Amino acid sequence: MTKAVWKYHINKLFEYSQSNPELKWQVTNCVALDLVNHGDSALENEGILGWQFDWREGSHDLIQVAKSLKLQGESIVIGHSMGGFQSLYSTLISPLMFKFVIAIEPVTHGDEMASVVFAKKMLPAVAGAICTEFANEQEYYKYMKQRSFYRNFHPQVFRDFVDSEKIVNPDGTVRTKTTKQIQMICYHAGLRIFPRGLELISMIERPVVFVAGERATWTPKSCVGEVRNALQHGEFYEVPNGEHLVNCEDPDAIIEIIQKSLTKYVKEKSDTRTSELIDRKKYNELFDENYSKLAAEFFERKSKI
Amino acid sequence: MTKAVWKYHINKLFEYSQSNPELKWQVTNCVALDLVNHGDSALENEGILGWQFDWREGSHDLIQVAKSLKLQGESIVIGHSMGGFQSLYSTLISPLMFKFVIAIEPVTHGDEMASVVFAKKMLPAVAGAICTEFANEQEYYKYMKQRSFYRNFHPQVFRDFVDSEKIVNPDGTVRTKTTKQIQMICYHAGLRIFPRGLELISMIERPVVFVAGERATWTPKSCVGEVRNALQHGEFYEVPNGEHLVNCEDPDAIIEIIQKSLTKYVKEKSDTRTSELIDRKKYNELFDENYSKLAAEFFERKSKI
Repeated sequence: MTKAVWKYHINKLFEYSQSNPELKWQVTNCVALDLVNHGDSALENEGILGWQFDWREGSHDLIQVAKSLKLQGESIVIGHSMGGFQSLYSTLISPLMFKFVIAIEPVTHGDEMASVVFAKKMLPAVAGAICTEFANEQEYYKYMKQRSFYRNFHPQVFRDFVDSEKIVNPDGTVRTKTTKQIQMICYHAGLRIFPRGLELISMIERPVVFVAGERATWTPKSCVGEVRNALQHGEFYEVPNGEHLVNCEDPDAIIEIIQKSLTKYVKEKSDTRTSELIDRKKYNELFDENYSKLAAEFFERKSKI
Repeated sequence: MTKAVWKYHINKLFEYSQSNPELKWQVTNCVALDLVNHGDSALENEGILGWQFDWREGSHDLIQVAKSLKLQGESIVIGHSMGGFQSLYSTLISPLMFKFVIAIEPVTHGDEMASVVFAKKMLPAVAGAICTEFANEQEYYKYMKQRSFYRNFHPQVFRDFVDSEKIVNPDGTVRTKTTKQIQMICYHAGLRIFPRGLELISMIERPVVFVAGERATWTPKSCVGEVRNALQHGEFYEVPNGEHLVNCEDPDAIIEIIQKSLTKYVKEKSDTRTSELIDRKKYNELFDENYSKLAAEFFERKSKI
């Protein structure tokens, strides 16, 4: 899926934040990304995308975008499915970038048998189900509403997503921004992650809010348990009746979890105004104060060990 | 150290490459980086650097720079000490970016006892030895030649480094671009890496040319052996009589290893000219050809497993 599915959540989060000024946190920026080969990024990168992909590249891009924004205050990262893994992995790349992670139905790992089942059974099934080229707009909406993976989306999320993915060609035929080929390449690339995903997860130092759908089957229940055990800090939420696409099908449940988590992990209001000029004196004082603490603890000779 | 120490190697590599046109590889670009808080980067970022640092941030920056260059052909990454670790770790962030890694005396890991020794003994010793502020230029050069860690550098590397680090203040006093505080912050940040460095190393999929100095003691010999065992692919070189700063003290030995490794791992000449325009037809054919292979293997229903 693309950044369009988060529009609903973002609007609701701003509404909630602004109508509750007494909260310890306030939302000041929400940025939703299209993966390099998805949605608007796919259009932007048409003709230069590879036929191989590594999910971890998406984590890198995420960090690159986060850095480029030069945000002040505290940032968190939220992702779903492959994006859930990419959010988690981004904290290994840049451990100080995000205060915490919300990983919704992340796809993380699987043993050798799971990889075989995925490769031999799930990939062909998905390839059989995905359609991204249509005779006309009517056919496009019909497929999306009746047969696509997105058919059970919350109505607003469905409209946001389906409208944003649609490209009407000059001859009236319709295609999606994210091609079937690219989607399949991304699914297939999961096979690179499965053998070592759990090991990667176990190295995460940031708190992780791990959200699973109660009825979701895309990720086996055993994997959910293994991830819970592997995480060092954080909470687990199970959304009642939730399926794998719970972030799009029950967005209000997800929004509630985001709000709860912000309240739990954001301890004090940050000054989120971007200062036009760096206050060099204040910086120097702050640097010296903090460096002195480090020096006193580590850099001065005290006694033999 | 800074990018200045690589100038000698880069010149020699270009000379060798250009005078041996029959080689399977040719050097077309060499880029040496200053870490965010070192050398010219430190000046650029004055007043905004943190009093905490995570080595892994350097790997991210490395990848960001490599991406921004949009190089064609094959790239490799070379790093020393902390930079050795950062080069290795960069392949976990972006597994397809570099063909292989040359890690010279990388600092990778240590058990709890090693961390205690490092924190209690080595950090204060290093803090006692480093000096980055001087009464005048004469004092600067005297310290650098007689007492600094750099005193045994190859003469050309020494000049390149010491000249490039020098800042003469208006009052005639001298300071280095990389402050003592920042150097200590970077040394100290090793403590974040030691507990899990070896686990990270073991996940590297790219070939690693691992270079150690025969007489080096900064990294215990037991760690060298553990890293050798943990690496999946690659070679090990021990530079005779080499110390930890072998890349600067015996640059010709390192250059020879770089040349050998390029000959081993670069299998065919790449077209390294940057194409002004993407050949869309050629791209489409190439994409379809490669996607078809993937689809035939994975996305078509064949038989039950």
